[in-house]
Amino acid sequence: MQTLWDHRYAQRTQRMKSSAVRELLKLTERPDIISFGGGMPAPEVFPIEEFREACERVLRDYGALSLQYSSTEGYRPLREQIARHSARYSIDVSPDNIMITSGSQQALDLIGKVFINPGDHILVESPTYLGALQAWATYGAEYVTVPIDEYGMITDELEAALRYGPKFIYVLPNFHNPAGVTLALERRKRLIELADHYGVPIIEDDPYGQLRYDGEHLPSVVLLDGQFRDNCSGEYCGNVIYLSTFSKILAPGLRLAWVIAPPEVIRKMVQAKQGEDLHSATFNQLVAHEVSRGGFLDRHIKVIRSTYRERRDVMMSAMDAYFPPGVEWTHPEGGLFLWATLPNNLDSSEVLKDAVAEKVAFVPGGSFHPLGGGENTMRLNFSYARPDIIREGIARLGKVLTNRISQQSAEKVRA
Amino acid sequence: MQTLWDHRYAQRTQRMKSSAVRELLKLTERPDIISFGGGMPAPEVFPIEEFREACERVLRDYGALSLQYSSTEGYRPLREQIARHSARYSIDVSPDNIMITSGSQQALDLIGKVFINPGDHILVESPTYLGALQAWATYGAEYVTVPIDEYGMITDELEAALRYGPKFIYVLPNFHNPAGVTLALERRKRLIELADHYGVPIIEDDPYGQLRYDGEHLPSVVLLDGQFRDNCSGEYCGNVIYLSTFSKILAPGLRLAWVIAPPEVIRKMVQAKQGEDLHSATFNQLVAHEVSRGGFLDRHIKVIRSTYRERRDVMMSAMDAYFPPGVEWTHPEGGLFLWATLPNNLDSSEVLKDAVAEKVAFVPGGSFHPLGGGENTMRLNFSYARPDIIREGIARLGKVLTNRISQQSAEKVRA
Repeated sequence: MQTLWDHRYAQRTQRMKSSAVRELLKLTERPDIISFGGGMPAPEVFPIEEFREACERVLRDYGALSLQYSSTEGYRPLREQIARHSARYSIDVSPDNIMITSGSQQALDLIGKVFINPGDHILVESPTYLGALQAWATYGAEYVTVPIDEYGMITDELEAALRYGPKFIYVLPNFHNPAGVTLALERRKRLIELADHYGVPIIEDDPYGQLRYDGEHLPSVVLLDGQFRDNCSGEYCGNVIYLSTFSKILAPGLRLAWVIAPPEVIRKMVQAKQGEDLHSATFNQLVAHEVSRGGFLDRHIKVIRSTYRERRDVMMSAMDAYFPPGVEWTHPEGGLFLWATLPNNLDSSEVLKDAVAEKVAFVPGGSFHPLGGGENTMRLNFSYARPDIIREGIARLGKVLTNRISQQSAEKVRA
Repeated sequence: MQTLWDHRYAQRTQRMKSSAVRELLKLTERPDIISFGGGMPAPEVFPIEEFREACERVLRDYGALSLQYSSTEGYRPLREQIARHSARYSIDVSPDNIMITSGSQQALDLIGKVFINPGDHILVESPTYLGALQAWATYGAEYVTVPIDEYGMITDELEAALRYGPKFIYVLPNFHNPAGVTLALERRKRLIELADHYGVPIIEDDPYGQLRYDGEHLPSVVLLDGQFRDNCSGEYCGNVIYLSTFSKILAPGLRLAWVIAPPEVIRKMVQAKQGEDLHSATFNQLVAHEVSRGGFLDRHIKVIRSTYRERRDVMMSAMDAYFPPGVEWTHPEGGLFLWATLPNNLDSSEVLKDAVAEKVAFVPGGSFHPLGGGENTMRLNFSYARPDIIREGIARLGKVLTNRISQQSAEKVRA
C-alpha cells in the first residue's frame, strides 16, 4: 500500500521514535497486567465532583467565552492564579512571566523549537526524562550528560560538561523522573553559580515539586536564581525557564501546564505556540481556574500527598520483603517514581519479558540514558496502582528477579 | 533586561512572525470595535446547554477515564464517530485512517514537522490560509503559488507550478479562507489527475465544507482520489491528507480537529504528536463524542447554516448598499468569509487605519499572499457579528472606502 507520501518524509522524521513509555502504556492497558510503567496519577484522587460543579459554573457564567477562541499566552485569570500559587512556594513572578501550554510536553517541544539548532548540545542528567529526549530529537539535539547520585545531579562533574558549550542545562531537581532523587540545596546553589559563570541558562522541570511526603520543601532553582540577581521591575528576568503542570495536581486529561520565564522568552514561545495549536483549550483553562479557586488546590494537594505517601511506603516495604539481595533502590521523598538498580549483568529489558509473562510491568531504565548505559536499571511508578495491587505486583516482580538472579549465578557456576 | 537566553534562539525562531490575524484578534477584543477580522464562530450558536449535559454525563459515566492520560491517536469511539460522520459525506474511511489533533493548526504543524525539510517548496493557492504559512515557516518552507478565481485554484496554471517539484499541494477547496470561493468539480478532478501524473500528494484543508448555504455539496478531493484508486482492504490509502475540525461545527475552545490519511502517514504523525503534546485533552474528546451523539451534530450544523446564511446575506446586501463603485467581492456559497478587491492603487492596510478610527476592523489581504501581492484585497468575516452589527459595520466601512477612493480620484486630478 505505497502512497506518494512514503518517500517524502523530512529528515527529522527519521529521528523520531515512538516512545517506549507510550508503547508500554498501550501494553499495560490490558486489564490483567499490574503496571508500574506509566506516570499516571491515581484515578481515585481525581476530584470528579468538583470538576462537575466547575463545568456547571463555567458554562453558566462564561458559556460562550469558554467555548470560543482565546489568547495564545493563556487565560489571564488562570495565569494570575498560577502567579499567586507560585508565591506560596516563594516564586514571585508576574502573569507576564507565565504562559499556559498543552501539557509540559508542549513546553518541552516549544523550548526545542525556539532554541535548538540541529547539532546543538544540551546538558542533561543521566538518566533523564524520556519525554524531553523525544521532543528534542525532532530538533536535532545532541547531548552531554552529568551523572546523578542520591542527592541529584553531581555538580562536581558539571564543570567538565559545561566546558562543552551546551545550549542550556536541563534539570529535574525534585523527585527526579526516572530516578526519584532530589537535588540537594548546596548543589542547587552550585548549579546556578556554575551556570552563571559559564553563561549557560537552565531549564528546571518541576512536575512533582508539590508532592513531597517527607522532609522540608527545598527552594526551586528559579527562586534561588531570582534571589541571585537584581530585581527587574516586578518581573522575573533571570536565566531559568521553570516548568510545572496541572497533570499531577489536578488531572492530566486536561492537558494544561505552565511555563515561567523572562518576558522575552515567553514572547518567543508564544509566537511558536501560535503556529503550533493557536492556544490551549479555553474551556479547560476556565475549568482549571474555577476548580482551583478558594484554596481547593492546596487542600487537594494534601489529599494527593497522603494517598501517594502510603503507596510509596507500601511499595518500599514490599520491595524489602520480596526483592532478592543484589537489587538496590532509591528512597524518594516525593513524586511518582522509584528507581531500582539490578546486579550489573542483568538486563532489565530481558527482565521485563519475564515480568509481562507474570503480568506485571515497569519501564526498563536504558532508554532514559541519552548516551547509553543503565541497562541494569528500572523505573517503578507507585502512584497509579492501589496499595494491595502494588504489594501483589512487587511480589510477582520479586519472584521474577529472584529467578533471573539465581539463573545467572547458576550460569556463572557452570562457566 | 538581558538574559542568557537572548542570543540563544534557534535559526528557525528568526523566521517566526506573530500572525497579523492573531494580533488583530487582540485589537478587536476592544468591545467598541465591530470586528470582521477573526474567523470566530457566532457565540449565539454554541450549544451551551448540550455541553452542560454532556459534561455531566461524561463525569458521571467516565469520571476518572475522562481526566486521565489517553492514547496519542485519540479516543477510539470519537474516531469511530468521525468515520461514521464522514461517511455521510461519502468519505468512507476506517478509524485507523483518523487521528485527533489539538485543532487543525496542530495538524498543519505536524504535517510541517513530518514532511518539510528546510528549502522544500510547497504548492499553495495565492491567496492561502495564513495559519498554514505560519506553521510551515518554522520548518523552512518555500512556496510556489497558483492563482485562484471564482472557481478556486486555476488548474490550467497548476502544471507549470508542479514542474517546480513541490513536496505537496495545499488546497482549500470549500469556501476558501480567505477568498470564500469553491473549487469547481471539474477542477477537483483535474487537480487529482495532475497531482497523480506528477507524483505530488495533496493536503485538503476543509474546515468549512459542511457549512454550505446555497447550491449542491461537491465531493471532497479525498473522496474523488479514493474513487480513482483500487480499494485498499477497507482503509483509505490514497494521496490526500484531509483535515477537518470541530472548531466551526461545535466550538473552537475545545481545540479538537481530525486528520484523515493513509495509515502509514497517521503513524508518523502520531509519533510526531507524541513528542509535541502526548495527546489532545481526554476530557474534551469524551465531551465532543457525547455531545455529538444521537444525530445532534447534524441537527446543530443545520442551525449554524441558517444563522450564517442570514449573516452572509445581510453582509452582501449591506455591501451592495454602502460600498462605492470600484470595489468587488466574492459571493461565497458557504463558510465564514467574503473577499473584497479594492481599486488597484488602494492599499488595504492603509484603509484599515481609517477603519479602526471609525471602529470597524477587517484583515488586509496582503499577508495571505506568500510571495507578495494582494495589497488591494481584504478579508471580511460574516459569522461572528450579529446581523444589525454587520449592517452598521459595513456602513462604516463603506464610508471609509468612499472617502479613500474620492481622495485618490482628487489626487489623480491634481496630478
